[in-house]
Amino acid sequence: MFASLFLTSLIAVAKVAANCAHGTSAFPRLPNVTVSTFGYDALKGPLNWYGLNKTANVACEKGTTQSPIVIDASISTVPGSTLKWTVPDYPDGAEFENLGTNVEVIVNGSLVDSDSGVSYSLAQFHFHTPAEHRLEDEFYPMEMHWVFESEGTLGDLLRLNEPGADMSRTAKQFAVVAFLVELCESPGCTDPVLDAVFSAVEDIAVPGEAVMTGPLAFGELVDKLEHSQVYRYGGSLTTPPCTENVDWLISAELLYIDVPTWLAVKKVIKYNARYTQDTLGAVNLLQNVADELCNSTSN
Amino acid sequence: MFASLFLTSLIAVAKVAANCAHGTSAFPRLPNVTVSTFGYDALKGPLNWYGLNKTANVACEKGTTQSPIVIDASISTVPGSTLKWTVPDYPDGAEFENLGTNVEVIVNGSLVDSDSGVSYSLAQFHFHTPAEHRLEDEFYPMEMHWVFESEGTLGDLLRLNEPGADMSRTAKQFAVVAFLVELCESPGCTDPVLDAVFSAVEDIAVPGEAVMTGPLAFGELVDKLEHSQVYRYGGSLTTPPCTENVDWLISAELLYIDVPTWLAVKKVIKYNARYTQDTLGAVNLLQNVADELCNSTSN
Repeated sequence: MFASLFLTSLIAVAKVAANCAHGTSAFPRLPNVTVSTFGYDALKGPLNWYGLNKTANVACEKGTTQSPIVIDASISTVPGSTLKWTVPDYPDGAEFENLGTNVEVIVNGSLVDSDSGVSYSLAQFHFHTPAEHRLEDEFYPMEMHWVFESEGTLGDLLRLNEPGADMSRTAKQFAVVAFLVELCESPGCTDPVLDAVFSAVEDIAVPGEAVMTGPLAFGELVDKLEHSQVYRYGGSLTTPPCTENVDWLISAELLYIDVPTWLAVKKVIKYNARYTQDTLGAVNLLQNVADELCNSTSN
Repeated sequence: MFASLFLTSLIAVAKVAANCAHGTSAFPRLPNVTVSTFGYDALKGPLNWYGLNKTANVACEKGTTQSPIVIDASISTVPGSTLKWTVPDYPDGAEFENLGTNVEVIVNGSLVDSDSGVSYSLAQFHFHTPAEHRLEDEFYPMEMHWVFESEGTLGDLLRLNEPGADMSRTAKQFAVVAFLVELCESPGCTDPVLDAVFSAVEDIAVPGEAVMTGPLAFGELVDKLEHSQVYRYGGSLTTPPCTENVDWLISAELLYIDVPTWLAVKKVIKYNARYTQDTLGAVNLLQNVADELCNSTSN
């Protein structure tokens, strides 16, 4: 009995010590952020995003160029060298937020499409586990999205935690640079940007938490895009309000992450991939459900 | 020009050599199997399984206890020791088939639920990448399903490649023993059954292919279930025809797989997870879509 109580006390002390260690993280804590109201399961999930807000989220149900999709031979590529992507280094770190549905990093930057001449401002980058796009039907354990907007000042740029009803977004043109992330097995095999960002992920384990990351440098990642072929298609945001006319730019070169890092990230992000959509230009899969069911007899 | 032709010839010879090596596999090749007609994307995918066969697959759209689900505190557990699971070893291997939507292994066995007294016969086991069920919202890279039926002879048991229209299935009662599979990083960390089965996976890379596996022994796996708590709920098959009254028995103990093995399996199975369904007993998510849309005005 006493031995048991003593053991319980020891465990309690160990837990407090662990919490104190947590509080002394190398990553400075920031004020809490607002968490998303949509989700990925049941009536909060992607089959009911339209139901959550029938005005704002109408594209989720009626759009015919929705994302994500399966990338196959029908999707053309452009050389990454035609995309002038600029993102400064952050030697003092950048803001890293847990929005409940995702974790995102707030950084400045720009993208100029030298073919079309369109210029974009960078809003943030974030992650999906597992990946949302597939390559020739195969899926990947993670996907990184860099979200750019063609209009607005930094204060107006898309944050994942904006209210879904902000219709001003739909007037903007978005571009998303994406990387699929595959698992690797050798020590130190994680991409340096993923390594730097996710070293802080356990400090934002609870939705609403935000910290400053450690130092971030993006040169290697930008070089990778510029030296790869890039799958390009016109799709949509993969979260409400599912706005279309998004210029998707998906690197054909994978990034890599090791098992311990991926497990730590998955434990925080959990599951946040929208189901793949119908072929580009074909009926929205939810509209197809309605077409199938509205006139059918009850069973 | 000649150098280029020579190189092309060398590549051609290398390819033939690779094919020959493929043909000399340690795993004896079997006659091809019939591949599934449903799929996991666009109009072949789970949002349109009802549309593929409105008679056979009606439960996919109207069922209210559909699987998979998110396992949370509302799902009760039973001790694995109450499940008498018997599966003989296969020292000469078992049939391993690529059905396009999945890979399955044909083995005999039985399950007796000592609480209810119901006896089941084992039909096959197969895999999903990523896992279909989630634990407290978190997803896992793979799930293993052992499919049992309460009626019928071995010849009548459910095969994944049976035509979706076989309504006789719905008269049967199913039980599925499931294991979630997590990644591990140390050499040799893969569960012995997964290791033995998947050593043959590259020999069934093409849908329709079948081989005999190497020797299989299941004692350790059966022990794991018997010594774990088991999440239990009444759900459905996660593939067409989505038949309900399936007794789901999901081990709280994870299995483990290393990165090279998982990558090899993922390359063959690709993506085959149905989206998680609504809360048990609540409206089917597709019926909810119809309820939302059938009376809405067109946009």
